[in-house]
Amino acid sequence: MYILVINTGSSSVKFTLFDMTAPAALASGLVERIGLTGTELHYRNGKGHSHRGEVVVRDTTEAVGIITAHLTHRDYGVIQSLGEIAAVGHRVVHGGEEVNQPVIVDDEVKRIIETCFELAPLHNPFNLKGIEACEASLPGVPQVAVFDTAFHATIPRHAYLYGLPYRMVKEHRIRRYGFHGTSHKFVSAEAARFLEVPLAELKIVTCHLGNGCSITAVDGGRSVDTSMGFTPLEGVIMGTRCGDIDPAIIFFLMDHKHMGPEEVNDLLNKKSGLLGLADVGSSDLRDIMAARAKGNQQADIAVRTFCYRIKKYIGAYAAAMGGLDVIVFTAGIGENSPPVRELVCDGLGDRTRGLGITVDHAKNTAGNGKLGAIHSDESRVKVLVVPTNEEQEIANQTVDVLRARH
Amino acid sequence: MYILVINTGSSSVKFTLFDMTAPAALASGLVERIGLTGTELHYRNGKGHSHRGEVVVRDTTEAVGIITAHLTHRDYGVIQSLGEIAAVGHRVVHGGEEVNQPVIVDDEVKRIIETCFELAPLHNPFNLKGIEACEASLPGVPQVAVFDTAFHATIPRHAYLYGLPYRMVKEHRIRRYGFHGTSHKFVSAEAARFLEVPLAELKIVTCHLGNGCSITAVDGGRSVDTSMGFTPLEGVIMGTRCGDIDPAIIFFLMDHKHMGPEEVNDLLNKKSGLLGLADVGSSDLRDIMAARAKGNQQADIAVRTFCYRIKKYIGAYAAAMGGLDVIVFTAGIGENSPPVRELVCDGLGDRTRGLGITVDHAKNTAGNGKLGAIHSDESRVKVLVVPTNEEQEIANQTVDVLRARH
Repeated sequence: MYILVINTGSSSVKFTLFDMTAPAALASGLVERIGLTGTELHYRNGKGHSHRGEVVVRDTTEAVGIITAHLTHRDYGVIQSLGEIAAVGHRVVHGGEEVNQPVIVDDEVKRIIETCFELAPLHNPFNLKGIEACEASLPGVPQVAVFDTAFHATIPRHAYLYGLPYRMVKEHRIRRYGFHGTSHKFVSAEAARFLEVPLAELKIVTCHLGNGCSITAVDGGRSVDTSMGFTPLEGVIMGTRCGDIDPAIIFFLMDHKHMGPEEVNDLLNKKSGLLGLADVGSSDLRDIMAARAKGNQQADIAVRTFCYRIKKYIGAYAAAMGGLDVIVFTAGIGENSPPVRELVCDGLGDRTRGLGITVDHAKNTAGNGKLGAIHSDESRVKVLVVPTNEEQEIANQTVDVLRARH
Repeated sequence: MYILVINTGSSSVKFTLFDMTAPAALASGLVERIGLTGTELHYRNGKGHSHRGEVVVRDTTEAVGIITAHLTHRDYGVIQSLGEIAAVGHRVVHGGEEVNQPVIVDDEVKRIIETCFELAPLHNPFNLKGIEACEASLPGVPQVAVFDTAFHATIPRHAYLYGLPYRMVKEHRIRRYGFHGTSHKFVSAEAARFLEVPLAELKIVTCHLGNGCSITAVDGGRSVDTSMGFTPLEGVIMGTRCGDIDPAIIFFLMDHKHMGPEEVNDLLNKKSGLLGLADVGSSDLRDIMAARAKGNQQADIAVRTFCYRIKKYIGAYAAAMGGLDVIVFTAGIGENSPPVRELVCDGLGDRTRGLGITVDHAKNTAGNGKLGAIHSDESRVKVLVVPTNEEQEIANQTVDVLRARH
């Protein structure tokens, strides 16, 4: 069974075609800079062929058209006809309160995605465009929407409410939703499989640390709290986003420093986080780590602040769940930065007074980028590196939806 | 030795005269609604006399004048002359980064208090007025400023920095300062005394839960993190303040719900918190608890959300300190609400997977309002109720400053 996974952004379409029987990715790639100059397609198939180059693509529909043309191309394509694709799984960021699982797209689902435009203006409109483009290019093939927020639908009310007037929830839908749900779901299940312990018995904190970062408390396989909230701005410090701040800072900057709301919004979303704190001209942790290694004090304090905030979320979620068995590190930074993993867990080793988390330095260094344990023998809490695979998880959930239909 | 403690607000002056040799409060009270209609003085002395009534007082200086007249009154006064007062200790909310301990007020100290007007516009200007009024009424008597922020001066950089551009700290002084320092310092020292363990050996989380609420991590007697930040808006949910929220909510309300910045600021500071969540027309936890007891679901979820947020801070600070020995509950709610203390600690009992905190129901109910332990015998972490006394602590610190001078 072949499943095509599509992730449509404001100016890009990413794709992966899975053979679910292997399972394996038959082909993958992206079209980027859609609607801008220098639109490019990157394509690789599972047989060793890859190429990239400029393409003439004006919109999402044309991008999907060129992708499907590649997949069925007689030289480097991987399928004979589009009819071999059993379903298309789409990443959709926001499902609001109305959906808590993946669904086959119909008019009602499209309406739900549209009602959440306001909640995810940078994602949902483009996600819907991607769905409509695939409906046009692959008529008759089921389109499945897999929501970033869905895994967090199990968060209880006392954890998703803010300390705001209750009418804000009903009138304006202001509550914690959480994001990266597909990733948190995938890595928590992978962790249980790796440890050979039923997921239902585990209290896990999953740390998805990429350019966007979020931490989730996964109790018995269910998300019970997560650090991103109403939007992806809340939570730990990220590449360019500030994460948790005193909300009064916004009014202070507007009232006393005469900044406009747009300017402050831009500051908090695009000029803050590691980029702003480290001030080495990059939001990429690798650049900041390189500066730190050369003795840059500012880079050092940025990394320490970043890690300290994650440490506090781990403690908070251990309390929220009434215990902790496993910490999972995933995504770009989580999978590939031994110093971050070590700093996050530093000082948590005490088994009597504290959580009993000890990272083994050698395992941590050697365990970079691949599924494995990095805690020491005496650590009460297991610490794992689990590579995430959101495309695979979207494909899996798409298959689940197809099967449930029959 | 007699010490007068003064706390000057925007329209009130509170006072307590301490005999530090007893130690005991000789007299206390307040002048309220200064500059408004119905200005009133409340006065009580330690000999059983108390009265309240309207007074003609136009400003802080006149308020201090009427207070000193009462203290030396031939019938209900407690001292013969103002010359018996060794010093006046003033609560000053904000000392910025420049002061980290109580100091005798001179021109330089006044300048520091003034430079922090912008950081604490509702407090510092009035605190300074109180100092100047006392200088006029009690010439030659040392005035000592005790700062709410001072106890938190030991918070390390990785804990006081936000994920904002680093220049924000230097240019705009935007960082975590923390408040309620006098209370957190007092109750953590009291807890160590009660437990007969040196303060230097203890990892304590102090929960100051009044109308304003803040949580502090006190490691070896030093504040290492606290929930209020740049302003008192950040942190746990309070009477009318929202505490931690996704900062993007502010922009959402302005952009999509067409609220002005003033309106949003007012909403977050004055209409949120327990008042907004419970929606029973009161920010007073006692009213909300009464509604909850009658089956009001909204009141119930407000209380649960309030307590859940505190629980998460306890976990976060246990991680920050690498362990936890003691939890202290103090201030109006902390001292007087057994259900809040029980809900905050609920589910934290596991000693193997979690923190090992168990509240004893009978002790908790009986231990209301007075210094004592409320944890069960099997609890690894001690849980204490410690009545706070900020006036006493300000008096103590004032004496310390006088002694250090000699």
